[in-house]
Amino acid sequence: MLNGRIVLLIMGLLLVVEGAFMLLSSAVAAVYGEYDLPYFLWSALICISIGLVLFVTNRNAEKNIGKREGYIIVSMVWIVFSFFGLLPFYLSGAIPSFTDAFFETMSGFTTTGSSILNDIEALPHGILFWRSIIQWLGGMGIIVFSLAILPLLGVGGMQLFVAEVPGPVAEKLSPRIADTAKRLWGIYVFFTAVETLMLWAGGMSFFDAICHSFTTMATGGYSTKQASVAYYDSAYIQYVIIFFMFVAGANFTLSYSALHGKVAKVFKDEEFQYYLGFVLVVSLLVAGVLFATGNVMGVEQAFRDALFQVVSVITTTGFATADYLVWFPTLSIIMFMLMFVGGSAGSTGGGIKVVRIVLLLKNAYFELKRLIHPNAVIPVRFNSKAVSPTVITNVLAFIVIYMLIVGVSMIIMSFMGYDLNTSIGAVATCIGNIGPGLGEVGPAANFAYIPDFGKWFLSFLMLIGRLEIFTVVLLFSPHFWKN
Amino acid sequence: MLNGRIVLLIMGLLLVVEGAFMLLSSAVAAVYGEYDLPYFLWSALICISIGLVLFVTNRNAEKNIGKREGYIIVSMVWIVFSFFGLLPFYLSGAIPSFTDAFFETMSGFTTTGSSILNDIEALPHGILFWRSIIQWLGGMGIIVFSLAILPLLGVGGMQLFVAEVPGPVAEKLSPRIADTAKRLWGIYVFFTAVETLMLWAGGMSFFDAICHSFTTMATGGYSTKQASVAYYDSAYIQYVIIFFMFVAGANFTLSYSALHGKVAKVFKDEEFQYYLGFVLVVSLLVAGVLFATGNVMGVEQAFRDALFQVVSVITTTGFATADYLVWFPTLSIIMFMLMFVGGSAGSTGGGIKVVRIVLLLKNAYFELKRLIHPNAVIPVRFNSKAVSPTVITNVLAFIVIYMLIVGVSMIIMSFMGYDLNTSIGAVATCIGNIGPGLGEVGPAANFAYIPDFGKWFLSFLMLIGRLEIFTVVLLFSPHFWKN
Repeated sequence: MLNGRIVLLIMGLLLVVEGAFMLLSSAVAAVYGEYDLPYFLWSALICISIGLVLFVTNRNAEKNIGKREGYIIVSMVWIVFSFFGLLPFYLSGAIPSFTDAFFETMSGFTTTGSSILNDIEALPHGILFWRSIIQWLGGMGIIVFSLAILPLLGVGGMQLFVAEVPGPVAEKLSPRIADTAKRLWGIYVFFTAVETLMLWAGGMSFFDAICHSFTTMATGGYSTKQASVAYYDSAYIQYVIIFFMFVAGANFTLSYSALHGKVAKVFKDEEFQYYLGFVLVVSLLVAGVLFATGNVMGVEQAFRDALFQVVSVITTTGFATADYLVWFPTLSIIMFMLMFVGGSAGSTGGGIKVVRIVLLLKNAYFELKRLIHPNAVIPVRFNSKAVSPTVITNVLAFIVIYMLIVGVSMIIMSFMGYDLNTSIGAVATCIGNIGPGLGEVGPAANFAYIPDFGKWFLSFLMLIGRLEIFTVVLLFSPHFWKN
Repeated sequence: MLNGRIVLLIMGLLLVVEGAFMLLSSAVAAVYGEYDLPYFLWSALICISIGLVLFVTNRNAEKNIGKREGYIIVSMVWIVFSFFGLLPFYLSGAIPSFTDAFFETMSGFTTTGSSILNDIEALPHGILFWRSIIQWLGGMGIIVFSLAILPLLGVGGMQLFVAEVPGPVAEKLSPRIADTAKRLWGIYVFFTAVETLMLWAGGMSFFDAICHSFTTMATGGYSTKQASVAYYDSAYIQYVIIFFMFVAGANFTLSYSALHGKVAKVFKDEEFQYYLGFVLVVSLLVAGVLFATGNVMGVEQAFRDALFQVVSVITTTGFATADYLVWFPTLSIIMFMLMFVGGSAGSTGGGIKVVRIVLLLKNAYFELKRLIHPNAVIPVRFNSKAVSPTVITNVLAFIVIYMLIVGVSMIIMSFMGYDLNTSIGAVATCIGNIGPGLGEVGPAANFAYIPDFGKWFLSFLMLIGRLEIFTVVLLFSPHFWKN
């Protein structure tokens, strides 16, 4: 039987945490003495009191969290956090439309970064801080989710990296989650701090530095400037952000190894090799075409613009220093295709993930080999180990369902009158948790003019993308609810 | 060792056949007394004499055709036929550019139907007849290829329908091919004749009726009119063509059953059920939106326009009675997505094929079931039989490679300056052997303005699409050439 009370207990606890971060934002509002202060206090009060009620009324719940409870908690937390997290935006009038406020918050927590704001700089600092910190919290959540919860449930790209999934599905996820979470959050906080200092040292204000570091490490992409990172005309700042986007898009367990001196282990990881190689090859290609088609002046800028945009999209961050839609058509098509790659498994990035794409291609290649040698047993290998056919079919099914959702969603978007470009761009960027799309929702535009229905629908896509699809799909399955 | 001489012998034989059909076209030219007559005679002379030389010099070749010889023959025949088949177009000056003539001929033999012609009605009747008959010959070729050769080689969608593939790959394909070919060509000729009579009865000239029947049954889509079937403002003619496009896009072995009175067998076939259901559902959806968005007047015309365009694209025929690019955006997106479906296995249609799409979706669905019941053995079933995992991975690899080729080709097309729409549309329509694409190569436009490199590249895509990809990919594989 479903242990609903433990779900409520954990939700209560998490709401208190969310409220605490609202109080932190209210401190920022207080420091700047802007109009948003009372609204943060009200929001925090609502969050914390509801959280406490849930916590207290369910404190006697049995402390076992099974597979189903795990699924339900991770799916619900993003939705609950978004509905409460929109309060500061909505109550303060910073975002007057409820739909817009929800979209902006869901886009934040899922680390998507698609925005409906037309004048970001006009917002008070507390609101800007809140907007950045929800992405950072979302990033924290996804680290636990993808590195601690999903592998135990036997789904997600990370299952490949887990030595062994405990036989009968773990009845008690908690100890292991806490353990993994503590180690990795340490790294997450450490990187955020280092990036903040480096950006600050490069001439960014301390406030902007911390906000951009929050959203870089979360691969979120919210900026405190309407022009995004293009606002900072500094090669140093842009390279620093490129570096940390790349790190955030890599597996956090690799960062853990690297910080403990095991750098060789990082470069021996097959997903990392493909991730690094792919970023470099595509960036050089894009830089070459950019340079040849004369859209920028110098070699360095062509390279930097290419690298920034490629890393930003592949890691699903979504910062921009250039509008790839005004580049030579080939380049915007390449950027579009990158939207389907996504970061590494175990990163804060979204999308299909590098490891899945690599397995997909390897399997196709081996299939050709098998055609010629029908009797040979040729297993697909990853990190020198044979990958079980179960994992391969799981990956293939994931990609099929991902593409199917993209296809159907594209049709739904087009019913609002959008053409192929805008429809597929909006869908790909939201389900991939990236930020900018194509057509009317490109890097120089935003999602403000999408009809309300579209905003709710795209918010839903962000959620299912963030939860690696299967989690949400399972919740809609009657099998899941059978005992 | 490769039996190269038997390959040359068969090529010689086939060239004589091609020459014979040129003589048939010269008869048409003679009847109409137009300027193209001598060029047909010259072309036929070249074809037949080279064919005879190849035939005579290799008449002592060993008569065994193995797997590799089979692959090479089927890949080469489309290329060789296109180079010789372009002679009447090129020599007569009907198509003054060699590249254009090759594109038009390859588009014909592969039953694609993409054209570079800007004024079709200005051409002499012999040329129009030749243009239609190369599609018809291509359709004949593909029936043998997909129903007799591919299953024996253990690839292609039809392997599902073959009771058993002979153990050690058949050394002698010939008897079985001849047998299957004879039966199915009979049906092909019969349907062509019936359609001709029905179109003629509906007011089409006999010449146009026979040309349109040739290209309908081949799911080719070349018309003798610049406006395609839209030229014929007759509901009767359009419904007749819809019916025969649908038949040509269904498995020819089912037509064989139906013509032998076993109609129940047709409706019990799972691929046919999905094919029929899908056509009806999508047509009704398109008709509904067409009607609602007021692009056409009456209900009947909305339904007919929807059905015609849907059947034309899904069967990969490519005839047009309306320009789907001027429809409500959702509809052109739906038409675009249909380009990836394709006809049934064992039809003259191209594309991915209904059976593969169905298996893809079934597998994804069962994968979800397996996630919930990890220990249950849930095989994918098709036509009430469990489908072996080998077939599933083969199908998945096929689709992955198909999409990969589409992705890379899109980038190559965009280097010529085309945007996402035109690039993906041109690639999808050519590899799917359909005809019209999106953007600058939509149903109301043509491929005349694509640069020469693009025309050769798209011709290559038509070929690999027509040969179900693996055949061509294998030829480029070093493994294939090892003994």
